[in-house]
Amino acid sequence: MARTEPARGMRDYLPEDIRRREYVIGVIRRVYERYGFEPLETPAVENLETLMGKYGEECNQLIFKILKRGEHEASGQADLALRYDLTVPLSRVVAHYQSKLPRLFKRYQIQPVWRADRPARGRFREFYQCDVDALGSTSPVIEAEVCAAVSDALTELGFNDFTIRINHRQLLTSILNAADISEPLHGTALVAVDKLDKIGADGVKKEMEDRGIGANAAEKLLELFRVLGDDREQCRRLLDAAGVAAFENVQAVFAHADATSAGQRLKFDCSLARGLSYYTGAIFEINVPDLAGSLGGGGRYDNLVGMFLGQSVPACGFSLGLERILVVMAERGMFPPTLATTPADVMMAVFDAKDTPHGLRVAGLLRQSGLRVLVYPDADKIGKQIKYADSLGIPFVAILGGNEIEAGTVTVKNLTAQTQETYDQAAAGGAILEGLKQRG
Amino acid sequence: MARTEPARGMRDYLPEDIRRREYVIGVIRRVYERYGFEPLETPAVENLETLMGKYGEECNQLIFKILKRGEHEASGQADLALRYDLTVPLSRVVAHYQSKLPRLFKRYQIQPVWRADRPARGRFREFYQCDVDALGSTSPVIEAEVCAAVSDALTELGFNDFTIRINHRQLLTSILNAADISEPLHGTALVAVDKLDKIGADGVKKEMEDRGIGANAAEKLLELFRVLGDDREQCRRLLDAAGVAAFENVQAVFAHADATSAGQRLKFDCSLARGLSYYTGAIFEINVPDLAGSLGGGGRYDNLVGMFLGQSVPACGFSLGLERILVVMAERGMFPPTLATTPADVMMAVFDAKDTPHGLRVAGLLRQSGLRVLVYPDADKIGKQIKYADSLGIPFVAILGGNEIEAGTVTVKNLTAQTQETYDQAAAGGAILEGLKQRG
Repeated sequence: MARTEPARGMRDYLPEDIRRREYVIGVIRRVYERYGFEPLETPAVENLETLMGKYGEECNQLIFKILKRGEHEASGQADLALRYDLTVPLSRVVAHYQSKLPRLFKRYQIQPVWRADRPARGRFREFYQCDVDALGSTSPVIEAEVCAAVSDALTELGFNDFTIRINHRQLLTSILNAADISEPLHGTALVAVDKLDKIGADGVKKEMEDRGIGANAAEKLLELFRVLGDDREQCRRLLDAAGVAAFENVQAVFAHADATSAGQRLKFDCSLARGLSYYTGAIFEINVPDLAGSLGGGGRYDNLVGMFLGQSVPACGFSLGLERILVVMAERGMFPPTLATTPADVMMAVFDAKDTPHGLRVAGLLRQSGLRVLVYPDADKIGKQIKYADSLGIPFVAILGGNEIEAGTVTVKNLTAQTQETYDQAAAGGAILEGLKQRG
Repeated sequence: MARTEPARGMRDYLPEDIRRREYVIGVIRRVYERYGFEPLETPAVENLETLMGKYGEECNQLIFKILKRGEHEASGQADLALRYDLTVPLSRVVAHYQSKLPRLFKRYQIQPVWRADRPARGRFREFYQCDVDALGSTSPVIEAEVCAAVSDALTELGFNDFTIRINHRQLLTSILNAADISEPLHGTALVAVDKLDKIGADGVKKEMEDRGIGANAAEKLLELFRVLGDDREQCRRLLDAAGVAAFENVQAVFAHADATSAGQRLKFDCSLARGLSYYTGAIFEINVPDLAGSLGGGGRYDNLVGMFLGQSVPACGFSLGLERILVVMAERGMFPPTLATTPADVMMAVFDAKDTPHGLRVAGLLRQSGLRVLVYPDADKIGKQIKYADSLGIPFVAILGGNEIEAGTVTVKNLTAQTQETYDQAAAGGAILEGLKQRG
């Protein structure tokens, strides 16, 4: 007998899970479309070379690699890999189809990605991202609009206590320079800084030292984060010209975001780092008080398309993490009570096996009225059939016996109200729909 | 510079593709739900052992295998694999969650699968299947209902010329026995028989001989297919008891299907084989005249869950192939003309860069009316902006200049009618919605 659990870190989604996921995805998709983002999907499988070298060293190790096939399988080599995020495939797509896409290409993409991370509470190896990205403009309008889109999506889902932290990669670089951390160590330093929330200043300092950054530099860096805040004068005094320009860019994003729903959500945090290496400008992260990790993040990555196209295309986006949104919504009880929880609106039951075809015919009529109909497949005792419908929460049972078939009628039992009535077969659908409406 | 095309046999779906795919999936899903099927999803990645040995030898070689990770990567071994179909994962799920699922579990699942087949016209390495399955009953009601569900789905998509061929695995076994083909050769014989449509009787005969089946037996088999047709008397005369019982089972499916929309579609074909090894009872395949392959197929597989559970659970299902449905619909021009083709209903344009925040605010108002709004991110010359909207087929442009901002108004240009009008900002959304309605 084979094992039956899903692969490690992966999940099966039973009907109730899917209904919740579909609800959340539906809300997010509608909001994204209101912002003029168009749908895009890419294959789960990419050429391995497409993904390698795009995310930074630590991430490369988390990519699931696919073995060559046929005669090459024995080589043990991989040529393909599973999608690690939606941003790198998007950049490949923009480079490949450039002539077919609008100059300003705004797309959303809601698909799973795979990472060979150690599974933990709320961290899975297959998880959905809900991305919006706009390519073709360097205007801070783009940053403001991706923040507004995710902000509207979360608000429409019922979140009212989230914060979008914003920082800028160039500002971070200038701060790292000001702390006398040499350029080649910037990447590894940011991986440590990225954990500031989780492990605190002391933890970051220790991790930086473990990563080969001197204790003085580490301390100076943490001091700079404390001093700078969102103080323009401190920036001008302590940072180089590129750092000041980055600071101004963040201010421009604020000015535009203030005209949108994102304005009241944005908070400047000069220590925000984000793990991925491809960001070049503003970076974002969304948090809620009752979740350790983030609900999503994003930023500007003006050089990534250039790695495919040889010519850079400005780009900026935001990714919502579906799994974490679902975790928080479940814990807070945020799903609408109207979400369907039963497999059907009505179950079709017959008294006698020979009448099953009649049952199928009447089920067809009920379906034509738009009802979801489960046909009980066997002519078990009618009590047993009704009990089965009740156990699944199906509110109505349509029953056909000899009398009904002769008269062209069907008896409808309302399991909630404990009533029953007999209708013409053609009229039963309307009556059940009316009954469903009254239940709310 | 990296390659930009998707991996071999895989496809990127641009916005227009997604809109068509979502339309078809939406129709299929609604029909499946009317039949009382509930949504289920499983991970793309399964433990390799879950998939091996379920599909037959020829299929095993087409499974994409995932390399072990970390220190084990160098071993060149695989422990995971990409989903090859939706039926084996379903069987695993039913075995694993049996106590949480209804006794009669009807589920639909619309997800991609991956097969390392040689890519060809209409044959991809990543493709979507739209499956319905019912587990827990041996009643022919189940066969009739899965046929009716796919039949309704295709009809609602606009197909009116499809045929559902039906046969029975046990009937095939009995025919193979009657042709004196020994049991161990049945599997390989069926692989050949499965190609009868494509390569004809002579081709099948030759392939059977290549597969080690004697010329006499091959000829006798093809003769039996010709003679049997749907002739009950011939069955009784030529086949063993199990074969006759299988024939009766097919007749029972017909009797039930006749009470549904599938009745007029079903055609008995005693040479239909289907490639997969897990079928045990009735098998189906849908064809349309203008497509060489099938639009979908399915059947009864009463022993598959048992391979996971150690105790058999009767099961039967049908799978529609999304890609082929899309190919035929595109060739026949079957998509509704109302399918959205523009990224937005209205584009927001400002004359002056300093007014961009005003533009964002008005865009927010328009979105609150339910409109899809694209904000032009730069203050290019207004003519250039309008031209851009026109090039994307966006029907309306909302324009803000100094006068409008002062007066709290916005000018709306109807690019189709070549008219423009100025509205209060709060009233513009309603006016544009009205304009969209008039365009149809």
